[in-house]
Amino acid sequence: MTEVSDRADAAVREVNAAFYAALEACDLDAMADVWEHSDRVSVTHPGWPMLRGWAKVAGSWDAIFRNTGYIQFVLTDEQVVVVGDTAWVTLDENILQSAGSDELSGSKATATNVFVREGDSWLMVVHHSSPVADDG
Amino acid sequence: MTEVSDRADAAVREVNAAFYAALEACDLDAMADVWEHSDRVSVTHPGWPMLRGWAKVAGSWDAIFRNTGYIQFVLTDEQVVVVGDTAWVTLDENILQSAGSDELSGSKATATNVFVREGDSWLMVVHHSSPVADDG
Repeated sequence: MTEVSDRADAAVREVNAAFYAALEACDLDAMADVWEHSDRVSVTHPGWPMLRGWAKVAGSWDAIFRNTGYIQFVLTDEQVVVVGDTAWVTLDENILQSAGSDELSGSKATATNVFVREGDSWLMVVHHSSPVADDG
Repeated sequence: MTEVSDRADAAVREVNAAFYAALEACDLDAMADVWEHSDRVSVTHPGWPMLRGWAKVAGSWDAIFRNTGYIQFVLTDEQVVVVGDTAWVTLDENILQSAGSDELSGSKATATNVFVREGDSWLMVVHHSSPVADDG
């Protein structure tokens, strides 16, 4: 890879990590910083229908954060691909979380995250996470 | 939109339609024509773990086609976004299918499809489809 594409790759990894940090912190402001605020963004949470447009995306994070006591992600098998001003990251999400009670439950999902470069920043435009069946 | 971006939008819609036509026809050769044959491609079928690289992607389609008697897709809420030489399509998949028996079953999934332009062609690099829960 060239030095330029190395830099883009590192910048995408950084914003992808910031996305999961915002998610773990249940921090809506930090989550808002990661996303493009436009009609073309979309989010699919595991088992959910796709939601499109920043208002619906933000609303879904707000609802999730309000109902999450604790959530931790161990990310594995991450791959970053940069093509011009677009990038996508694929990875596995190993999730430990609690909702309401103190009991922690584990689950596995797989995600596709798409980012677009705007000026010096990479912003998330798609987060699609889906449940992996236990026998998967 | 400019005329150039209109043309790109139409070309992406066309290859996205060719992808679902290959899937409905259970035609592995037609499916191979739609995809980039590289290490950076990935597929996530509903409930499956993510598979990466053309060999694994092709193998998964072969397995699905061998085990599918009939499959039909009604696609709704399609959105195409083109950024330079990359594009992504988000849509809902309303699926009618039979496996083995004559009985048809319906299901709903939501998909993110990513394409990259190479010369005059747009090729699929990511297909991520996930089940939507009945109450979703």
